[in-house]
Amino acid sequence: MNQYFLEKAQAIKPVLNEDVVRPVRIPDGIYCTGDRIVLDFGNHFVGRFFFRVHGEGSHQDAPALLKVKFCEVKKEIEEDSSRYQGWICASWIQEERIHVDVLPAEVAMPRRYAFRYVIIDIAAVSDKYGLVLDDAYAKVTTSAEDAVLTAYQGNAKEMRMDEVALRTLRNCMQDVFEDGPKRDRRLWLGDLRLEALTNYVSYGNYSLVKRCLYLFAAVADEEGRIPACLFTEPEVCGDDTYMFDYSLFFIAALYDYAAASKDLEMARELYKTARRQWELAQENFDENHVVHDSDVLGWCFLDWNLELNKQAGAQFVYLYCAKRLCLLAELLEIPEDITEIKRDMALKKQAALDYFYDREKELFVSGSKKQISYASQVWGVLSECLEKEENIRVLEHMRRCKDAVEMVTPYMNHCYVEALIQVGMEKEAYAYMMHYWGGMMEDGADTFYELFNPGNPSESPYGSCIVNSYCHAWSCTPAYFLRKYNLHG
Amino acid sequence: MNQYFLEKAQAIKPVLNEDVVRPVRIPDGIYCTGDRIVLDFGNHFVGRFFFRVHGEGSHQDAPALLKVKFCEVKKEIEEDSSRYQGWICASWIQEERIHVDVLPAEVAMPRRYAFRYVIIDIAAVSDKYGLVLDDAYAKVTTSAEDAVLTAYQGNAKEMRMDEVALRTLRNCMQDVFEDGPKRDRRLWLGDLRLEALTNYVSYGNYSLVKRCLYLFAAVADEEGRIPACLFTEPEVCGDDTYMFDYSLFFIAALYDYAAASKDLEMARELYKTARRQWELAQENFDENHVVHDSDVLGWCFLDWNLELNKQAGAQFVYLYCAKRLCLLAELLEIPEDITEIKRDMALKKQAALDYFYDREKELFVSGSKKQISYASQVWGVLSECLEKEENIRVLEHMRRCKDAVEMVTPYMNHCYVEALIQVGMEKEAYAYMMHYWGGMMEDGADTFYELFNPGNPSESPYGSCIVNSYCHAWSCTPAYFLRKYNLHG
Repeated sequence: MNQYFLEKAQAIKPVLNEDVVRPVRIPDGIYCTGDRIVLDFGNHFVGRFFFRVHGEGSHQDAPALLKVKFCEVKKEIEEDSSRYQGWICASWIQEERIHVDVLPAEVAMPRRYAFRYVIIDIAAVSDKYGLVLDDAYAKVTTSAEDAVLTAYQGNAKEMRMDEVALRTLRNCMQDVFEDGPKRDRRLWLGDLRLEALTNYVSYGNYSLVKRCLYLFAAVADEEGRIPACLFTEPEVCGDDTYMFDYSLFFIAALYDYAAASKDLEMARELYKTARRQWELAQENFDENHVVHDSDVLGWCFLDWNLELNKQAGAQFVYLYCAKRLCLLAELLEIPEDITEIKRDMALKKQAALDYFYDREKELFVSGSKKQISYASQVWGVLSECLEKEENIRVLEHMRRCKDAVEMVTPYMNHCYVEALIQVGMEKEAYAYMMHYWGGMMEDGADTFYELFNPGNPSESPYGSCIVNSYCHAWSCTPAYFLRKYNLHG
Repeated sequence: MNQYFLEKAQAIKPVLNEDVVRPVRIPDGIYCTGDRIVLDFGNHFVGRFFFRVHGEGSHQDAPALLKVKFCEVKKEIEEDSSRYQGWICASWIQEERIHVDVLPAEVAMPRRYAFRYVIIDIAAVSDKYGLVLDDAYAKVTTSAEDAVLTAYQGNAKEMRMDEVALRTLRNCMQDVFEDGPKRDRRLWLGDLRLEALTNYVSYGNYSLVKRCLYLFAAVADEEGRIPACLFTEPEVCGDDTYMFDYSLFFIAALYDYAAASKDLEMARELYKTARRQWELAQENFDENHVVHDSDVLGWCFLDWNLELNKQAGAQFVYLYCAKRLCLLAELLEIPEDITEIKRDMALKKQAALDYFYDREKELFVSGSKKQISYASQVWGVLSECLEKEENIRVLEHMRRCKDAVEMVTPYMNHCYVEALIQVGMEKEAYAYMMHYWGGMMEDGADTFYELFNPGNPSESPYGSCIVNSYCHAWSCTPAYFLRKYNLHG
């Protein structure tokens, strides 16, 4: 643990902004065993929940047993967690059972939740009394400052998309940039990069990005490698998960920060850590400057797709980040690095074209089976190995290729929109964004989801939607696209 | 609410004695999803439970979801509360579900429990870590003073019976004499009477009895009628349940207290309240001095038996308590009351013999269907309507009568043993006590149960054993019999 970096990060730990919010309506009535109270807070929030109840009828002669469930979206209300058989840990389900021994009671739920709806099921009261809900409220938090949010103008759908995207970002901005306030509630590098980009054009909270970059620098391992994510409780600690692309994205995130904030002092302090990710990544290349493929699940993330071959994408992410390391070296005026990085990039670009570009098909292929995927094409374009016109043709061929392995996450969809914009296809970028994120809006989203398949809105890679996160940082980038590139319909 | 009596009661509210106890063994090992930790505290306790856990493996990447269950007896460990279909409120089941978000953790369970065993089921942890239990302990309470407990000598089985009985009493002695620390955790008059009798010959805590009698006097209704039980949380409040026999037992409990403590000042202060129960009970008699029968469930308790006709028993309880009111009037030297009570008793005794005694069968009968039950015979004997020799024959006929409605609760069994002793059948009393309460000891009891049928130990009147109380005040009287009457095998 690098104590110096850690102290830098902890010195700018945010004080969370706390608000008290109440549901749209607190229903009347006397509730008995089997009854359900549904509270709708009218929007997505992150925070703690409190309620006051009293008994009606005879004196309470047995505890009240309540099941309290927190739902980010409406369809969660009817889901039955007792049937959950998915492979992700069931402890993420936001559901508590509590006994209230003495009425009237002021109940403070013990944890932080992400929710729009709070469901109170009266699991058991005796026949001698019923429950009346006197009050219900939440103390909600964010480290975003609503007051400094820069204004945005667009048509109604664009305005709403911006609003939903920024609600997503805002509710993930807590003590760090979380990936999702329901799950996993922690700082991942891939998510951070996209959150930071959206943040620069909206809340402008540079300090929180700075803190997160220092945190990642602090938890680099003995070799200097940055883990894919880190924990802040009970103490700051890096995860033992390392992913080829996520480690490299430290470079991109630092460059984006330096470019947006002009804080060169900080960039200088973390430059070596960034450069180290580039050096370490080189160990994964063979003598022909081609990155090694791997069967290890999650060696490189790219997208949440077990079918996807990651080799070409890994090579392209490397090139994407090497370019940003070079830009950092230029900002910081380190000429010897500029030369070295450029020489290396030229070799690996050429290798990329030789090994991953099918000149006949004008498509990128990946792995020994020459897999064609959206991820490979998109990152191929973003790596800038080809000329702009060639890139446009790659994206066009990709859209016509029926066998191409598709994208799964909003995270990968973000990269696709970015690629379209990069090659000047703003119109297509706008249309695709409106189709994909607009699909979540049609599904009633207050915040954008971790996962979304417009063709199957109830899809989950976890074996059950119950653990899906419906406010997920990596989905917040429509606000970035709308604001940064001034996209309009 | 009588504020004067309430203040008297609250002025002597006990400070509970608190001890820290640990399970016999804290098991080693790393616990994963589906694993179970069984903690055996070696004896029955009442109190709060605490434990410390840490994670082993990778850093905790998901909350730990634990199910914590408190069992008074071993067989509860395997019972599945999710299948509970009984008619008593499911909220009495001592089971909690908790999420531990941050490890290591010091967990303080939120409520008071009655238990020997604590079961921690690991409902969900992620694949990346397991749980290690570092410590587990309970802060247990009682208002009994173990140090002042008077010694008792007997053979091994008698010593153990005394010990189990007093463990029962001790763990019910909290802020008031509770009926059971698992359920209902409150002060019932019928239970109080038996707890107090046992307390006088063991812990000698007169103050707690005094407090409870003042509490009952405080919550008498506008007419002066004392409810069957009362609540102390959030404030002292009488229940809206009134039972013919329980109201009358205020008289017996006050007399027992005065006789044991010699505290005539207190007896004088509550004499009118006691006398008022006798007066109010008279409204239930017809012009022939026979108590009205009733179809209202629970109009008179006697025993937990829906089949039992209560008419004769009610008449006998009235006589039993009238005698004690007379004894109180003698202690307090109120000659005009003595005369009046005796005149009334004579009339109601004669009516009892005329209406409820079958001279041919030499048995008491009850209700329009002339039901023969243990309860009627036992209370008939205790009412002293007949001569001693006649009473002996009643009890002997009863034991031979195959159709007699039997006893269900230890509470009614207590009365039976008391009746045997009253007619000089100490040997039979001893044998029966050893058979009945001894049966619970053979079942492994650390404390005596709310309900016990030697022929069917898993019987419950609630449709399921899961809500049975296994440390129940009204079962504590073997210590009273052993100590008071010096019974020996």
